[in-house]
Amino acid sequence: MALIVQKYGGTSVANPERIKALASRVARYKALGHQVVVVVSAMSGETNRLIALARELMPDPDPRELDVVVSTGEQVTIGLTAMALMDLGIKAKSYTGSQVRIVTNSAFTKARILHIDDAKIRADLNSGHVVVVAGFQGVDEHGNITTLGRGGSDTTGVALAAALKADECQIYTDVDGVYTTDPRIVPEARRLKSITFEEMLELASQGSKVLQIRSVEFAGKYQVKLRVLSSFEEEGDGTLITFEEEDNMEQPIISGIAFNRDEAKVTVLGVPDRPGIAYQILGPIADANIDVDIIIQNTGADGTTDFTFTVHKNELNKALDILRNIQAHIGAREIAGDDKIAKVSIVGVGMRSHVGVASQMFRTLAEEGINIQMISTSEIKIAVVIEEKYMELAVRVLHKAFELEEA
Amino acid sequence: MALIVQKYGGTSVANPERIKALASRVARYKALGHQVVVVVSAMSGETNRLIALARELMPDPDPRELDVVVSTGEQVTIGLTAMALMDLGIKAKSYTGSQVRIVTNSAFTKARILHIDDAKIRADLNSGHVVVVAGFQGVDEHGNITTLGRGGSDTTGVALAAALKADECQIYTDVDGVYTTDPRIVPEARRLKSITFEEMLELASQGSKVLQIRSVEFAGKYQVKLRVLSSFEEEGDGTLITFEEEDNMEQPIISGIAFNRDEAKVTVLGVPDRPGIAYQILGPIADANIDVDIIIQNTGADGTTDFTFTVHKNELNKALDILRNIQAHIGAREIAGDDKIAKVSIVGVGMRSHVGVASQMFRTLAEEGINIQMISTSEIKIAVVIEEKYMELAVRVLHKAFELEEA
Repeated sequence: MALIVQKYGGTSVANPERIKALASRVARYKALGHQVVVVVSAMSGETNRLIALARELMPDPDPRELDVVVSTGEQVTIGLTAMALMDLGIKAKSYTGSQVRIVTNSAFTKARILHIDDAKIRADLNSGHVVVVAGFQGVDEHGNITTLGRGGSDTTGVALAAALKADECQIYTDVDGVYTTDPRIVPEARRLKSITFEEMLELASQGSKVLQIRSVEFAGKYQVKLRVLSSFEEEGDGTLITFEEEDNMEQPIISGIAFNRDEAKVTVLGVPDRPGIAYQILGPIADANIDVDIIIQNTGADGTTDFTFTVHKNELNKALDILRNIQAHIGAREIAGDDKIAKVSIVGVGMRSHVGVASQMFRTLAEEGINIQMISTSEIKIAVVIEEKYMELAVRVLHKAFELEEA
Repeated sequence: MALIVQKYGGTSVANPERIKALASRVARYKALGHQVVVVVSAMSGETNRLIALARELMPDPDPRELDVVVSTGEQVTIGLTAMALMDLGIKAKSYTGSQVRIVTNSAFTKARILHIDDAKIRADLNSGHVVVVAGFQGVDEHGNITTLGRGGSDTTGVALAAALKADECQIYTDVDGVYTTDPRIVPEARRLKSITFEEMLELASQGSKVLQIRSVEFAGKYQVKLRVLSSFEEEGDGTLITFEEEDNMEQPIISGIAFNRDEAKVTVLGVPDRPGIAYQILGPIADANIDVDIIIQNTGADGTTDFTFTVHKNELNKALDILRNIQAHIGAREIAGDDKIAKVSIVGVGMRSHVGVASQMFRTLAEEGINIQMISTSEIKIAVVIEEKYMELAVRVLHKAFELEEA
C-alpha cells in the first residue's frame, strides 16, 4: 500500500466527462489498496474567465479580492471531483486550501506556502477516504484567502506530498511527459523517460510549461518522487524526475530546449559605476514584488555602466514606472523597455562534461541570422534572449543541431 | 450616521454593470455618512448552473459537497462587489460566510444560523470600510462550508443586521416593494407602503417570493427594521415592514394574495384513529428533514382517519417512500401523492375584526367552479389548496372580489 498524491490540471478536469475519467483512474488506484490524495486545478478556462470578470469591475484588480474570486475555480472542482468519486461508491471528502489549512504568507496572487496542517487529511485517509484538495490556494494567518500564482496547483501537490511523506507525487497533465521541446513547435520532439531535477528546474523555469518551477524546487528540497503523466492516456509511465544523474555513458549533451515569450527587457543606461548601484536599481523592483529573471551588467569605458534585466511582460510598465521615479536619484541617462523579446534555453547535465556547447548554440543561431541580445548561463543551461519573432525558428534549428529527435 | 445593511439579490448583481450600479448606490449612502454592510447573492443563474454541473457528476449530489460547489457563487460576487467599490475610491473588504464566522449547524443545503461573530466587521466599519458579505452561506463548527438554502441571502442580511444592531436592513430586489399580489398575474396589483410583520410572514411563507420566510422571522424576533426596495430604481421608499398594526381605521380587510405551486399533497387513507397516529406519520417525515406545510386530519365513521399534508414538490417522492415503508406498521389502507396542486392564500390583519371573509373567499372560488381540496386558516390568513391549473384564475378573481386594486 502506497500513499500517492495525484495532481490534475485544468484540462484534466475541463468538463464532467474528464472529471469522471479522473475518478475512474483514482478508483483503480484505490482498488490496488493505495491511499490517494487528489489535488485539482480549476476547470480549464475558468481562472481566465474569473480574472476577466474582475477586470470589468476594477481594471487593476485588488489582489486580496482577486484571490477571493479566482479561488472559487478550484473550489468548484473539488466538490465536483468528490461527487464523481462518491458516484463510483468511493468515500471522498473535499477541502479548500483554507479548510486543510495550507497556510501561506499574505502575498496575494503569489503567496508562498509556510506550513500545511495534515491532521484532517491523515484522519480521512485512515478512515478510507480519498481526499480531494483545491490546488493553487491557501489561507494566511489572518484567515484571508490567498492564491499561489499561476501553476500553483503543482506546488500544492508537491507540498502536500512532502507534508504527508507520500510515496509518489503524480502530476497529470495534457502531455504524457517531458519532451525535448514543445512538440507543437518541433514535431520531432521526443519524450524523455527520465530527467534530473536540475534539468527539470531549468526547463520549468525557462517556460517549458509542464511543471511549475516552485513545485520542482519543493520536490527537490523535500525529496518528493515526482512523475509527469498524461491524464488522457490509460497507460504509460510518463517522465520520472530523478534526483541524481544516471550513470549512463550515453547521457546526451543536452536534454531539452525551453522557451519563453512572457518576459520583457528593461534597460538602464549610463548609471555611474559605483558600488551598490545594482542594489539601488533592483532593490525597489524586489520591494514591489516583481520577479527578475536574467540580469546583465556591462561596464563602459566612461565610468558608467549599463544594466539590463528581464521581468514578466505584465510587470514591465510597473518596473519602468519604479525606475523612472528613481532615475534622477541613481543618475541614469536613460530607462528603456522592450516586450518584443523571447528567451530560448538549452538545458542538459551532459553540458558539464562537454565543451563547445555554447559556441555550437551561438553558431547555429548566427547561421540563421538571429541576433543574440542577452546571454545567461548556468552549469547546465545556456539561455539567450532574442527578438520574439525568431523564437520558433531558433527552437527548431537548435533541436536539429543538437540531434534531440534521436533517442 | 446610521448603520445600514443592504442585501442585493441575484438580479441586482447579474452582471458587471449591475454590480457597478450597486456600488454607486452604496457610495451615495457612504457620502451621507452612513456605515454600510452589503450582503450579496450569487449572480443570477449561477446557482442553478452550479447545481446542474453537480448533478452531472452525481445525480443526487452529496449535500456537503454541493455546498462546497454552490457557495462559490456568492464568493465570486463579494470579490467583484468589493472591487467595484474600490474602483470608486471606497475602502471595501469582502468576507465569505466562513471568514465572518457565520456559524451554522451542519444541515448542509439548509443550515440554520447559530451565531455570528461580528468582531471583524465592526473593526472594518470603524476604519471606514464598506464590508461585503456573502449571503446564503456559513460554516459549521467543524469548518465545513454550509448553505442556508434558497433565499438564504435574505436571512444572512437580517441576521447580520440583528447581530450588528443595524438601524435598517434594506432588501434590494427586482421588485420595488411588496404588492397585493404578483403583478405578472394581476396587472392591477398595487404596491403596499407598509405591511405588518405578521402579514409579511404569511405572504412570504405562502410563496410571494419577495422575502424568504426565515429572514422575516429573524427580523421579527430581533426587531430589525426591514425595507424592501428596487435595485433598478434610484428613487422610491419601497415597502416598510412594520412591527405593529397601524392605527388606521381605513385598514383594509386583506392586504394581499399569495400563491404557491411548489407544494405537493400527500394523503394517508384509512389509518386507525388512535392517539399518537399523527406523530407516527409525521415523525419519520420530520426525521428526514422534510418540511411539512398544511396538515389536515379527518376522522371517518368507521374508526379510521384520513391524513393529508403538503410538502415541497421536490420531496414528494422521498415522503411517499418513507410512508410506504411504514404503511404496514401504521395500518394505512392507502398512500397517495398529488403534485398537480397549488395553494392560494388571502392575508390581512384586518380579518381579525371582520367576519365573513372566509365565506366570501369560498363563494368567489365556487362561482368560478374551482373546487377546494384543503383549507387551512390562521388568525390573519385563509389558505386553500386547489387544482394547479386554476391557480391564476383564483388569484385574479380574489384580487377583484376583495377590491385590492383600489388604494
